[in-house]
Amino acid sequence: MTETEITAILSQLKFDDQGLIPAIVQDAVTGRVLTLAYMNREAVRRSLTERQTWFWSRSRQKMWHKGETSGNTQEILRAESDCDGDALLVYVQKQGPACHTGNDSCFFNNLFGAEFQPDFRPPS
Amino acid sequence: MTETEITAILSQLKFDDQGLIPAIVQDAVTGRVLTLAYMNREAVRRSLTERQTWFWSRSRQKMWHKGETSGNTQEILRAESDCDGDALLVYVQKQGPACHTGNDSCFFNNLFGAEFQPDFRPPS
Repeated sequence: MTETEITAILSQLKFDDQGLIPAIVQDAVTGRVLTLAYMNREAVRRSLTERQTWFWSRSRQKMWHKGETSGNTQEILRAESDCDGDALLVYVQKQGPACHTGNDSCFFNNLFGAEFQPDFRPPS
Repeated sequence: MTETEITAILSQLKFDDQGLIPAIVQDAVTGRVLTLAYMNREAVRRSLTERQTWFWSRSRQKMWHKGETSGNTQEILRAESDCDGDALLVYVQKQGPACHTGNDSCFFNNLFGAEFQPDFRPPS
C-alpha cells in the first residue's frame, strides 16, 4: 500500500478527542471476535503498511505491536471502516491466543446465553 | 434475568468517564460483525432485561432502542464481556439491515483485502 493510499484512508477516518479509533479484531478463520483495541494514526499506518496489528495501548500509553513479546502476532487479511468512519474492523489470521490471559479470545466472560455457541465455520 | 443478576453483571463492567462501554454487535447467524455502538448502564440493563439491543446514542445524546423506528430490531442470543470488563460482545438475530444506510452491516467500507470475503457460515 502506497503512502498516498494510506493518507487517503486516514483522511476518511474519525479519531476521537484522544486521537484514537476503536478497532475490532475478528478471526478470519473462525469468525470469532477476538479483541477490541484502539489505534491512533500511527497504529493505523503501521497496521496497513506491515499487515500486522498495531495498537495504541491506553494503559501503557505507548505503541503496541500485538505479539511483539509473546510472538502471537496477527496478520491482517482485510480491513473495513464503518458508516461513520469512527470504527475499524480487521480480519486476522492469528498465531496463538489473542488474549494476554491465554484465552483464544478476549471475550471469554459469558454474561448470558451459554446455550448459544459462537462456533462459526470458516469462509468457504 | 433477575435484578440481582443484572446488578452483578453491571458491577463487573467498566464504564468510561462518559459512563459508556463499547458493544460489538455480531450476527449470530452469519458471523458478520454488524455495528460498534455504546451502552450506558441503563442500556445494558434494558438489553439484558428485554433481550433486544439498547444503546446510548452519542450523537443524539439519548437512549436508542435499535429498530424502534425502522422495525429492524436485534434479538440478543448471547452476551460476553472481555478480559478487562471494558467491552461487550453481543450475538444477535436481526430483523433487516443493521445499518441506518440500509447496508446489512455498518462495516461496508472496504479499506483493503477485497479478495478476502467474510462469509462465515452459521454455527453447526
